[in-house]
Amino acid sequence: MLEELKEKVLKANLELPKKGLVTYTWGNVSGIDREKKLIVIKPSGVEYDNMTINDLVVVDLDGNIIEGHLKPSSDTATHLALYKNFPNIGGVVHTHSSWATIWSQAGKSIPAYGTTHADYFYGDIPCTRKMKKTEIEGEYELETGKVIVETFNANELNPDYTPAVLVNSHGPFAWGKDAGDAVHNAVVLEELAKMAYNTENLNRQVERMQNELLDKHFLRKHGKNAYYGQGMEAN
Amino acid sequence: MLEELKEKVLKANLELPKKGLVTYTWGNVSGIDREKKLIVIKPSGVEYDNMTINDLVVVDLDGNIIEGHLKPSSDTATHLALYKNFPNIGGVVHTHSSWATIWSQAGKSIPAYGTTHADYFYGDIPCTRKMKKTEIEGEYELETGKVIVETFNANELNPDYTPAVLVNSHGPFAWGKDAGDAVHNAVVLEELAKMAYNTENLNRQVERMQNELLDKHFLRKHGKNAYYGQGMEAN
Amino acid sequence: MLEELKEKVLKANLELPKKGLVTYTWGNVSGIDREKKLIVIKPSGVEYDNMTINDLVVVDLDGNIIEGHLKPSSDTATHLALYKNFPNIGGVVHTHSSWATIWSQAGKSIPAYGTTHADYFYGDIPCTRKMKKTEIEGEYELETGKVIVETFNANELNPDYTPAVLVNSHGPFAWGKDAGDAVHNAVVLEELAKMAYNTENLNRQVERMQNELLDKHFLRKHGKNAYYGQGMEAN
Amino acid sequence: MLEELKEKVLKANLELPKKGLVTYTWGNVSGIDREKKLIVIKPSGVEYDNMTINDLVVVDLDGNIIEGHLKPSSDTATHLALYKNFPNIGGVVHTHSSWATIWSQAGKSIPAYGTTHADYFYGDIPCTRKMKKTEIEGEYELETGKVIVETFNANELNPDYTPAVLVNSHGPFAWGKDAGDAVHNAVVLEELAKMAYNTENLNRQVERMQNELLDKHFLRKHGKNAYYGQGMEAN
Repeated sequence: MLEELKEKVLKANLELPKKGLVTYTWGNVSGIDREKKLIVIKPSGVEYDNMTINDLVVVDLDGNIIEGHLKPSSDTATHLALYKNFPNIGGVVHTHSSWATIWSQAGKSIPAYGTTHADYFYGDIPCTRKMKKTEIEGEYELETGKVIVETFNANELNPDYTPAVLVNSHGPFAWGKDAGDAVHNAVVLEELAKMAYNTENLNRQVERMQNELLDKHFLRKHGKNAYYGQGMEAN
Repeated sequence: MLEELKEKVLKANLELPKKGLVTYTWGNVSGIDREKKLIVIKPSGVEYDNMTINDLVVVDLDGNIIEGHLKPSSDTATHLALYKNFPNIGGVVHTHSSWATIWSQAGKSIPAYGTTHADYFYGDIPCTRKMKKTEIEGEYELETGKVIVETFNANELNPDYTPAVLVNSHGPFAWGKDAGDAVHNAVVLEELAKMAYNTENLNRQVERMQNELLDKHFLRKHGKNAYYGQGMEAN
Repeated sequence: MLEELKEKVLKANLELPKKGLVTYTWGNVSGIDREKKLIVIKPSGVEYDNMTINDLVVVDLDGNIIEGHLKPSSDTATHLALYKNFPNIGGVVHTHSSWATIWSQAGKSIPAYGTTHADYFYGDIPCTRKMKKTEIEGEYELETGKVIVETFNANELNPDYTPAVLVNSHGPFAWGKDAGDAVHNAVVLEELAKMAYNTENLNRQVERMQNELLDKHFLRKHGKNAYYGQGMEAN
Repeated sequence: MLEELKEKVLKANLELPKKGLVTYTWGNVSGIDREKKLIVIKPSGVEYDNMTINDLVVVDLDGNIIEGHLKPSSDTATHLALYKNFPNIGGVVHTHSSWATIWSQAGKSIPAYGTTHADYFYGDIPCTRKMKKTEIEGEYELETGKVIVETFNANELNPDYTPAVLVNSHGPFAWGKDAGDAVHNAVVLEELAKMAYNTENLNRQVERMQNELLDKHFLRKHGKNAYYGQGMEAN
């Protein structure tokens, strides 16, 4: 069942330690089959070194386990909230990668300071508000998903154009057209977080990049007028 | 004698250079057999590359060498003080890992700024006071252990919930249920130290994370209501 | 056609991920045959892992594709502008390497603070002005090349003595006597950018190095009185 | 001739890229045979990857080439000045390693902030004054050696207890009882430079470590009362 999706999700999970985004069992990647409305996700607390395709868990959009002998990631409810509210995404990843987590802990959105940012994100990468006591003590992982969605709605952000978020005092979630693309965006986010931090440190008066440059770079790689890459979808 | 424990202690010692926590012969890991009241510890000043199980030294809780052809780590007395005063711990590690040492040198405790911290440490990671001249010139390594214990008592800290300390002007000690778990906590400490440093630099007004979020994350991984992982002990 | 040049350009491109200067498909290297007036350049958006010599594209100085089954790098027009205006250079490289990009995003030139800098660059490494709206919305990549040339003309810089530039809000371009030398200079630039950033942070009152020391180091490696190396061209 | 010394010097040179202290051909290590008054040193501008024992150059204390088909390192005269003035040292190394060079460029000595420092250096690691125009334009490499010796004399430093220096606007030289020990000290210096930089950044009011702690750590590893290690010379 869902063999091809499982292969992609396993590969995307194993990419996390390779790219230096996770330590030990931290982080998790999922992918969705939109037609079947089923999600494949990493099991909770399992070492990447030993993970096999049979360890992955299949859940439905309500979080019921459909297949698998292990418990799904404790962050599953957050993944599900994103799939329900962001209809075009096919993969979700959560990490505690150092630089993105530093911005999360500082409670600050990452401003767009250059074309590396603009090649992937159409504006700032938002940080959520702090969660309320009732949210934390209630269905915490579900509420985490809700506060992400709230952040995108409140700022009128298009999740397809801003494929990541920083959860306040926690760390990043990223997404993409599939599990591999989600991890790709998480790697880029980490690099952007590092560069933005040091850009601000080097020039305390630095301002966001020009809007026309943001437009130029984002739109040469995304949407119908894209001309980067070989004619396939570029990002 | 104690073959299984020696295997674990050797493996934990070799994990230090693999995880980038030590340079040359720096650092040392020990493990205890609580029933036999014997400790297995790294020899002093021996290269990790060449270390074998026969180089490990067995000492009793008074520091008497019970087995081994080499001198035990010069920090042995500190390890023994921790085993005597923290009755649940099974392994101890000392390193000069960069970021934790930077906090030690700055003489500052590491505040809890996010869920990565809260997943492992139930509050700030304390830094000891500076040692007194008489302590330094007396039984220095034993006194180092005493000042750690004093720090935990003075702040009413539970060593099982705060499995590491920063020794002022020196570096970190970490511990855990066994030697491998101690090293695991030392790796996490290093990452937390790096992220907290940069969090403060990015947001000079940053405050500690909310208590309810600290509770949520620590307690979902530790204690009787833990639900992270696969039902085995999670941390 | 141009087999030897293609080999060199391929090798120089593959050097980028090895030296940690690029992530994914970012970055591109080209080389020129000055007699034939033909440029060999990396294709657009292709992974380094899979790149072969047949993927490289041959273009003339007007950007016409002379050979190749893929589209050339989207930055081709910038490379061409540099070859046309800097008559002695044989290779060009563009990256988004972290530290050089941080300076670009901060909009600051890299001052010469030490002999490592002086061994390769005869003075500050300039950052261009921000591009104008009309330039960005016009022939953007060509205009990027023009603003680089403008920067060198306005500051009376010799591109042979200052083999790199920071494009404002974007990232670095570097060049050299051939493609490999261009990448060599890009690696050095990245190290200089990192060291200059931290030098300023460590000493807020730091001043540029003495002119006589800049002269000494640059001229012992470059020009007719060079005495570094084995008598071959040293840089 | 001097085969054993050459083996050691080659190995020490190859250690530089392995430990991340050098880029390309930067850096050089030498070793001395005190009885024969001959020095073995790296050739100038040769890649580490291809270096063999036959590429090493033998010079006497006046810099005359006694053996070798290549030119010796351009920094040879500095090495010779150190051997002449520091009678107990057996090896010298020069690098542009990032963190030590940052302190050199900032023109600041590295204060002793913790026991990692005290285990190897008995007090601050000094930075020289800037060199004078006449020194730079004269016998520059020899004058570099002289200004190092001047720094040690002026501050009444024992080179055996402070086995490194920062040359202002340039980078570090380190030394030791042989070529391998010199590189060992250069690796430690790099780590100390990184930690001291970040210690100051974390605590702007930080003070040097206590003298009694400096004494304790340095003297437990050096001199006649050392008790670290296995009874062999520890450092």
